[in-house]
Amino acid sequence: MNEDNARFCLLAGLILLYLLCGAAIFSALEHPFELRARRLWKQQLDNFTQRYRVNLGALHTLLRQYEEANGAGIRVDVLRPRWDFSGAFYFVGTVVSTIGFGMTTPATIAGKIFLIFYGLIGCAATILFFNLFLERIITMLAYIMRWCHERRLRCAGVGVVSSREESSGEEDSLEGWKPSVYYVMLILGVASVVIACSASTLYSPMENWSYVDSLYFCFVAFSTIGFGDLVSSQRQQYESQEAYRLGNCIFILMGVCCIYSLFNVISIIIKQTLTWIVGKLVCSGRHQSCSCCRPGQKRLKRNTVQPISSHCPAGRHRYMDGSVETVCDSETDAGAVADGVYVGRRLSGEMISVNEFMVSNKVSLALLQKQLSETAHQGPRQSYSHQNGFSGGVGALAIMNNRLQETSVDRLHK
Amino acid sequence: MNEDNARFCLLAGLILLYLLCGAAIFSALEHPFELRARRLWKQQLDNFTQRYRVNLGALHTLLRQYEEANGAGIRVDVLRPRWDFSGAFYFVGTVVSTIGFGMTTPATIAGKIFLIFYGLIGCAATILFFNLFLERIITMLAYIMRWCHERRLRCAGVGVVSSREESSGEEDSLEGWKPSVYYVMLILGVASVVIACSASTLYSPMENWSYVDSLYFCFVAFSTIGFGDLVSSQRQQYESQEAYRLGNCIFILMGVCCIYSLFNVISIIIKQTLTWIVGKLVCSGRHQSCSCCRPGQKRLKRNTVQPISSHCPAGRHRYMDGSVETVCDSETDAGAVADGVYVGRRLSGEMISVNEFMVSNKVSLALLQKQLSETAHQGPRQSYSHQNGFSGGVGALAIMNNRLQETSVDRLHK
Repeated sequence: MNEDNARFCLLAGLILLYLLCGAAIFSALEHPFELRARRLWKQQLDNFTQRYRVNLGALHTLLRQYEEANGAGIRVDVLRPRWDFSGAFYFVGTVVSTIGFGMTTPATIAGKIFLIFYGLIGCAATILFFNLFLERIITMLAYIMRWCHERRLRCAGVGVVSSREESSGEEDSLEGWKPSVYYVMLILGVASVVIACSASTLYSPMENWSYVDSLYFCFVAFSTIGFGDLVSSQRQQYESQEAYRLGNCIFILMGVCCIYSLFNVISIIIKQTLTWIVGKLVCSGRHQSCSCCRPGQKRLKRNTVQPISSHCPAGRHRYMDGSVETVCDSETDAGAVADGVYVGRRLSGEMISVNEFMVSNKVSLALLQKQLSETAHQGPRQSYSHQNGFSGGVGALAIMNNRLQETSVDRLHK
Repeated sequence: MNEDNARFCLLAGLILLYLLCGAAIFSALEHPFELRARRLWKQQLDNFTQRYRVNLGALHTLLRQYEEANGAGIRVDVLRPRWDFSGAFYFVGTVVSTIGFGMTTPATIAGKIFLIFYGLIGCAATILFFNLFLERIITMLAYIMRWCHERRLRCAGVGVVSSREESSGEEDSLEGWKPSVYYVMLILGVASVVIACSASTLYSPMENWSYVDSLYFCFVAFSTIGFGDLVSSQRQQYESQEAYRLGNCIFILMGVCCIYSLFNVISIIIKQTLTWIVGKLVCSGRHQSCSCCRPGQKRLKRNTVQPISSHCPAGRHRYMDGSVETVCDSETDAGAVADGVYVGRRLSGEMISVNEFMVSNKVSLALLQKQLSETAHQGPRQSYSHQNGFSGGVGALAIMNNRLQETSVDRLHK
């Protein structure tokens, strides 16, 4: 079993464990309430049948009919129509985003069959939309963070720069700096919290939910879980209804995009952790037959610095996370980057920087995950990974600069 | 606005259009049924109140109470307990997979708050799991498809090979062949249909659903939409209950993984289409000021073949989708691959091959999307994209061979 498979199995095992723990905790939290609700309902039913001398069987029949009517969106308190245009629009929105509240569901066979084909294209398009959004938000974040860092450098007087912003001197001093995946997670986390809190401030008075309920609804909707126990914008009438519906859509769209990005960033950190655990396990598993477990030797093996590759004259070796990457970005001037920058980078230790992988690459985070795995697995695949072109995907900040310059030039021309 | 942003906006616009069309169609399909259901329920309610002389207000109160009890999972026909361990396990499964049927939802404040934090980690871990699954399934598919192609070649007597499977001669004759994204989509589509049909064959008799209902349930569950109008394994008792519950979990797990992969592959094809549309739009938009719209000249620009890059002696130019990529995979022997292979590849026209990007790269599909966008956008970013290291990620089938050999060597050693 190679390390990729080991990591996959480890993740599956950990998720299973996580599910078991979650099941135990939720069971402990919610089981008493379920029993109480059951007792309460029995009592209410008894009261009703005794008071009105209704046949229990007939009442059960009525309640079953009510359940069926519920499925078609009928409630005692009149709700908005399910299948007028705006209701159907809300419905298809929950389909393509895979939220699926279930407040509205197709009841006819034609509707169900159409849903399958409609959802197939719609969900794929939305996944693409989320991925493109992720790409753009990460590019934007990294650009902003770089700009902030630039300002800080300028204020501190480090890396003296001329008034021309993209001077080569400044590029050099910034080449070593990348935002870490933890910062990006922090920013996305804060953005998610801000959106959820703003949305809750809207929902809480409009829907008469408690603030905690509103927050819970926001998480369930934004994460596309979509239980449907609480669904916004379902009543017949609201104050300034059109504005509320629009706001509801915008909040859900923003929230879903933001939480999707956040999940992806968190998943990178989980992957880093898994890779670390697998590395440890492999080490301890081989501690008699294999020399790699002796820390000094292992470090040495992973850190072996080869002479600058003869295949790629512009290739440079970068220290990162204890492994070596040959960077083959031949469009940057090899001489322009001081070695001190890489030493500085090395000091940042385990903080793998996102920007390194993404900005330069206008890339979805999955690529980042892949790159991280490449980095982590370079030890065993050392024979070729030091020299292959993939590592070229890493750290070519110059490409980002090119791209951004080009982008702004494009804007000027249009 | 650069082309990335243009494509993003185009996608957003198309999704909006898709939603509007979907809303209109669903509205037309389902609205009559809603009205019929509403009339039916009114009639049933009238019958009941007239027959038992029940105060309508009191009955409404009872029905509201029943709605509340419904939220806690109480029905007239006894369902399985919501919050015993197995019920809670099913619940957390629907949370982390973001299916969120909503047949069980936390009712206490503590449960709701815990859900937010639990879901945050759980959903991220599951996204990672799906991505790793995607990576593994694509690697496996490409390996199998390559093996089949190999067999076919051997039977046809093309590319005469020795008995040693990984001889360099065979690698050469297979270098030009990659499975196309359409084949992968087809295989995943067939797998999804097979899983859905098998699952429906199980659900249909066990849950007393019609076969179409079962298929509809499968799609809604596997795509993680999870309306919750139909939920499997909810009754108090089934025949061979434990086996059914296990089978239910396995089918949902397999289905979700498969449909997730399918969505991602479809999203690539959507992205290709978008890129093509944006290209056309840019062309027609610039048809007076810019020369790129004249087909001949544009082709020429995109196809400019540079002399083999002086930065990367092993660099080779590959024709693909009308653009040029410099491949910098210095670990493959540049001389080993005949030029004829590339000509052959070029003849395959617009069929962009998946394997080209992924197998060699043991990579999530998002990377593939990125690579496709790189390919498509090489025109405007020509100044550096011909020489950058990213293109190295493309087409190095030799790396896959290395990886697979290495993998099998690893297995032998363990």
